[in-house]
Amino acid sequence: MKRTGDRLHNQLRPVRITRNFTKNAAGSVFMETGETRVLCTASIDDRVPFHLRGKNRGWVTGEYSMLPGSTIERSSREAARGRQGGRTQEIQRLIGRSLRSCIDLEMLGERTIVIDCDVLQADGGTRCASITGGFVALADAVNVLLKKREIFDNPIRNHVAAVSVGIINDELCLDLNYAEDSIAQTDMNFVMNESACFIEVQGTAEKDDFSQDQLIAMSELAKAGTVSLIDAQIKALQQ
Amino acid sequence: MKRTGDRLHNQLRPVRITRNFTKNAAGSVFMETGETRVLCTASIDDRVPFHLRGKNRGWVTGEYSMLPGSTIERSSREAARGRQGGRTQEIQRLIGRSLRSCIDLEMLGERTIVIDCDVLQADGGTRCASITGGFVALADAVNVLLKKREIFDNPIRNHVAAVSVGIINDELCLDLNYAEDSIAQTDMNFVMNESACFIEVQGTAEKDDFSQDQLIAMSELAKAGTVSLIDAQIKALQQ
Amino acid sequence: MKRTGDRLHNQLRPVRITRNFTKNAAGSVFMETGETRVLCTASIDDRVPFHLRGKNRGWVTGEYSMLPGSTIERSSREAARGRQGGRTQEIQRLIGRSLRSCIDLEMLGERTIVIDCDVLQADGGTRCASITGGFVALADAVNVLLKKREIFDNPIRNHVAAVSVGIINDELCLDLNYAEDSIAQTDMNFVMNESACFIEVQGTAEKDDFSQDQLIAMSELAKAGTVSLIDAQIKALQQ
Amino acid sequence: MKRTGDRLHNQLRPVRITRNFTKNAAGSVFMETGETRVLCTASIDDRVPFHLRGKNRGWVTGEYSMLPGSTIERSSREAARGRQGGRTQEIQRLIGRSLRSCIDLEMLGERTIVIDCDVLQADGGTRCASITGGFVALADAVNVLLKKREIFDNPIRNHVAAVSVGIINDELCLDLNYAEDSIAQTDMNFVMNESACFIEVQGTAEKDDFSQDQLIAMSELAKAGTVSLIDAQIKALQQ
Amino acid sequence: MKRTGDRLHNQLRPVRITRNFTKNAAGSVFMETGETRVLCTASIDDRVPFHLRGKNRGWVTGEYSMLPGSTIERSSREAARGRQGGRTQEIQRLIGRSLRSCIDLEMLGERTIVIDCDVLQADGGTRCASITGGFVALADAVNVLLKKREIFDNPIRNHVAAVSVGIINDELCLDLNYAEDSIAQTDMNFVMNESACFIEVQGTAEKDDFSQDQLIAMSELAKAGTVSLIDAQIKALQQ
Amino acid sequence: MKRTGDRLHNQLRPVRITRNFTKNAAGSVFMETGETRVLCTASIDDRVPFHLRGKNRGWVTGEYSMLPGSTIERSSREAARGRQGGRTQEIQRLIGRSLRSCIDLEMLGERTIVIDCDVLQADGGTRCASITGGFVALADAVNVLLKKREIFDNPIRNHVAAVSVGIINDELCLDLNYAEDSIAQTDMNFVMNESACFIEVQGTAEKDDFSQDQLIAMSELAKAGTVSLIDAQIKALQQ
Repeated sequence: MKRTGDRLHNQLRPVRITRNFTKNAAGSVFMETGETRVLCTASIDDRVPFHLRGKNRGWVTGEYSMLPGSTIERSSREAARGRQGGRTQEIQRLIGRSLRSCIDLEMLGERTIVIDCDVLQADGGTRCASITGGFVALADAVNVLLKKREIFDNPIRNHVAAVSVGIINDELCLDLNYAEDSIAQTDMNFVMNESACFIEVQGTAEKDDFSQDQLIAMSELAKAGTVSLIDAQIKALQQ
Repeated sequence: MKRTGDRLHNQLRPVRITRNFTKNAAGSVFMETGETRVLCTASIDDRVPFHLRGKNRGWVTGEYSMLPGSTIERSSREAARGRQGGRTQEIQRLIGRSLRSCIDLEMLGERTIVIDCDVLQADGGTRCASITGGFVALADAVNVLLKKREIFDNPIRNHVAAVSVGIINDELCLDLNYAEDSIAQTDMNFVMNESACFIEVQGTAEKDDFSQDQLIAMSELAKAGTVSLIDAQIKALQQ
Repeated sequence: MKRTGDRLHNQLRPVRITRNFTKNAAGSVFMETGETRVLCTASIDDRVPFHLRGKNRGWVTGEYSMLPGSTIERSSREAARGRQGGRTQEIQRLIGRSLRSCIDLEMLGERTIVIDCDVLQADGGTRCASITGGFVALADAVNVLLKKREIFDNPIRNHVAAVSVGIINDELCLDLNYAEDSIAQTDMNFVMNESACFIEVQGTAEKDDFSQDQLIAMSELAKAGTVSLIDAQIKALQQ
Repeated sequence: MKRTGDRLHNQLRPVRITRNFTKNAAGSVFMETGETRVLCTASIDDRVPFHLRGKNRGWVTGEYSMLPGSTIERSSREAARGRQGGRTQEIQRLIGRSLRSCIDLEMLGERTIVIDCDVLQADGGTRCASITGGFVALADAVNVLLKKREIFDNPIRNHVAAVSVGIINDELCLDLNYAEDSIAQTDMNFVMNESACFIEVQGTAEKDDFSQDQLIAMSELAKAGTVSLIDAQIKALQQ
Repeated sequence: MKRTGDRLHNQLRPVRITRNFTKNAAGSVFMETGETRVLCTASIDDRVPFHLRGKNRGWVTGEYSMLPGSTIERSSREAARGRQGGRTQEIQRLIGRSLRSCIDLEMLGERTIVIDCDVLQADGGTRCASITGGFVALADAVNVLLKKREIFDNPIRNHVAAVSVGIINDELCLDLNYAEDSIAQTDMNFVMNESACFIEVQGTAEKDDFSQDQLIAMSELAKAGTVSLIDAQIKALQQ
Repeated sequence: MKRTGDRLHNQLRPVRITRNFTKNAAGSVFMETGETRVLCTASIDDRVPFHLRGKNRGWVTGEYSMLPGSTIERSSREAARGRQGGRTQEIQRLIGRSLRSCIDLEMLGERTIVIDCDVLQADGGTRCASITGGFVALADAVNVLLKKREIFDNPIRNHVAAVSVGIINDELCLDLNYAEDSIAQTDMNFVMNESACFIEVQGTAEKDDFSQDQLIAMSELAKAGTVSLIDAQIKALQQ
């Protein structure tokens, strides 16, 4: 199988992480992986969800949306339909769990950071880009809290990044774009941290089942991919 | 009253219109007026709303949303709340009426063009930026139809652009930013075409009523403002 | 153009304002302008919306509905559809803003007056009739508060009334009925107070744009119309 | 127990049935029983619900609403809350079943008549007034169909009317007003036809159970009451 | 008319009441009447609805649902449709009123018992089975409160049970199954207590009106039926 | 770590699969794993979702719900709240994908089989029990189609079953119950087929990340567990 632009099977698409893309949110990151573009903003709210009140713990949550014009065939607007679809809710829950895994919620204090991931242009891997870019937005929001001296120690314990791996014609490929994703027989998403350990693993045999050997090989590819993504996060945060 | 950056009372904020900002929609315009930034995409759908079927006429409609992170205090996501608020619906209806005024729906043929206006950064005047930028996205979508030879004559009859005018401390000001809008005693939005005629006029006495003389003076300011905006549209479309 | 019943272009339809039409609400006004009939009731609630609590200010809000049988083709019931349409919300917001403009909310004290405008028979101009009749219902509710000595000074500062003006075959007409409204090229609604100043101006070029001269001429007609409507309000309140 | 205005325990409140109260609906009846006032309109729709299509049968359905200002304490608007409450739905279903019992749906032909019952002033017995007044509106809509020669034989087979009976301090009372209803230990609604037979019987022991003897005695009272109501319907329809 | 299994017109279907069917709820009763099977669970909540707070009274409420697979043609899931239908709400309200009639809410103390009635297999009479089985679940939940010494006196004053009676081919039948219910000309539901008095009576002439004599005869059948059902409840509670 | 009832770390809870638990659905399976009890019914619908019409392919979908009384603290009813939560939708999508993987949709023909999984008693692993039991219900529904000669060849290609694996105090455990699940640091669900290949893999590091070695070891445990579950399915289907 030949990939677009002669990309190797274990090669990520070009990654660009632009911080401070907009000015009103505490963190605002324009995350690009290949042609996929997601605006990840982080907003700080002084309150926590009802069931966490008075427990001296914070909360991190994620919301996700595809702009109607982000896809080749226009996606209908969920606000107009009056409900978020199952896919959206699944991705939101994934983003929230992934980003909570990298932060000490007690050190964060009784406040919520909401990571909004709005897809401006979709070309596969939007949930992974949301997590990878959302981490940087979260880090920037935490920096705001530190600068304002609302907290004194950095509660972030770990970088977290996500990447997809798929099987196409029995070949493994890292970081599928939309065209590849459409024909993949298996599609997995891996969320990993800087210790190369797993936070979330989600695999679906879209067209054909997969073996344990393939599971292991996919996790190997994911490991390499997230290491590069975490490098990109670190560089972006140093600028 | 001194305006930010020594702006004159009859001076627009800097306008930037970037076409082809994203690649999947037929038209995609990044519209900036000062610090307000709206992504306007135009998507073509081969169907028309139910009540228009079989009438050989097309339809143009608008949808509007503020991304949660676009405001200083995060705006809650309407899809999560399960309904679009009254302000959103009012703006959507305004965008749709304004853009339909500039196009011959019979020449468009039995298809719908949806203009999605998603506010990435809000600093006042988002509905006006949506209309002004939405027009360019609409023009680009029409160009796609012409290029694909799905239509043979350009159905666009007129440029359309919108601007706000307000009264602050009894002084008239063109194109209010958020800080100005918050203290304005009256706030009006004008949608005009290239003949300097009115498509929509909406004025609200937020704090104090206004006289007929003020109404006339505001409409003068709006006329000058929309002429400049239409110039900017023309330049952008020539690139 | 000949109007129904030889009405002049600057002539209102007959206005009848019946107070105390029903007995349970604090104010209850049956507002008739020609064949348009709206029941406007005012109800007093001791609470204010959440964001106003503890600020020693009151609130006035409006709700609007067309009874299903009020139109020639039955309008579907919004409660059954599960959501209020955009037009309804737009009108409700207009009624609320208009009526708040005429009352000192601090003098009203921490309570809410809700003006419910339910259209029993629709023949054009229902939003204007709602505002004009709603003002009288509001005045009656305030009278109840004064009589019960819950407030000691009348917080109403100004009468407020509303009227539509349209352009039909390039002729200006005051107070359009449904048949006229359907063919108007431009339709404007003006909300004015007893100082002949504007509270709200909303104009839409339904079929053709309009010039500044037409805008001025329409506002002239509206001024004359609202003066008559305020007269009718005053007479009704004296009975 | 002394009733308001020396009403006897088996005496109805004054009944007034005003036809053609509004002009746009096919039938429009202003139904007053004592201080309870309901506007019942009948609208004809050429379609039937999906599951009845192509079966050469018509449909009659009812919708019910209390205007927010109809009660002493304002009732919140169901359209604003986004759903009809259980009580509303229960009453709507009752109105629909009751009115379908009096008409031959095959003779009606493939069309729907919707009876809208909107309570303008509530003082007990609104569901009964809706059925009694709704019948007259239905009859008027049928008359419209006959006059337009869309049907040739009258499909109405039977008058139908409804009345409440209650037990207060162990005494039976016909046609409870709101004050009586609030203290009744049992509250029953009877829908009957001109053969003095039952269409619907709904009884609830609000505070105390009731015996079979009481059930029989209540049905006797209801019989007498509905006979009078049907008389009033006949007189109204003859005018 | 011959009934399934040679059942007499005044004969109940076989009744089986299985307590402790599941382990997590305070009361859990598997109620079978013929082929109708309803799982009735009772859950205790330490809070009461908002409007009852601080009044030292408890609350009992019912919820009802048919599992999608409980009917021959699958019933769509109300949670997926996003709203409970009118029939469901009507039945829920009936269950709640019926079960509140048998308990002293002040003795229950400020807590809520929710009776959930989920129909696993539907063969007519599901609302009656819900009430009859729901009573036993309620009694078990009260027993839990007594055992835990959260209350000291049993607040249950009365058994309550429910049964349907119908008229088929002018013959009266007790406890209709689904096939009988489908052809019944009249269908009534009676909720009675151990004093053979009525709590709720709901009768509908589905196809033909019914006379007072038939009403009386139906109530006689119901009396006999509920006596047997209450016997079954007593036996079940003694095991 | 000691497990309830001395269960070994690689030991399933007792499995009971009862077919024909209710009579109205085409397949009806009562699935018990330990104290978790799920009723899985399969209903056949002659239609397919809109986007599949006319493609000569069938569809299999899953719905999932927890009965309110199935949990120790009552779960609120999603139909009453008016929307299905994110967790429910995620599980429904998983059930649907899993069961579609085992059947040839073209051989099924243009019809839908809906698998409803309603949890009667929850003690961990309800989504896995839904899939394992849902498969048997699906097989029974297919048998109905074969018996009725609506299809002639069995479209089921593969058994499918699901099991959870967790890490508690760094020890791996198969088939977690609720108490174990609450303290697990990692929780994975594996859906596998009779070739011991993966259909779905979903792992979440609830409290601590996990290594690749742990991922491999968990997949080993899952393999052994699903082999046993598929044995139980085969035995149940032979009875």
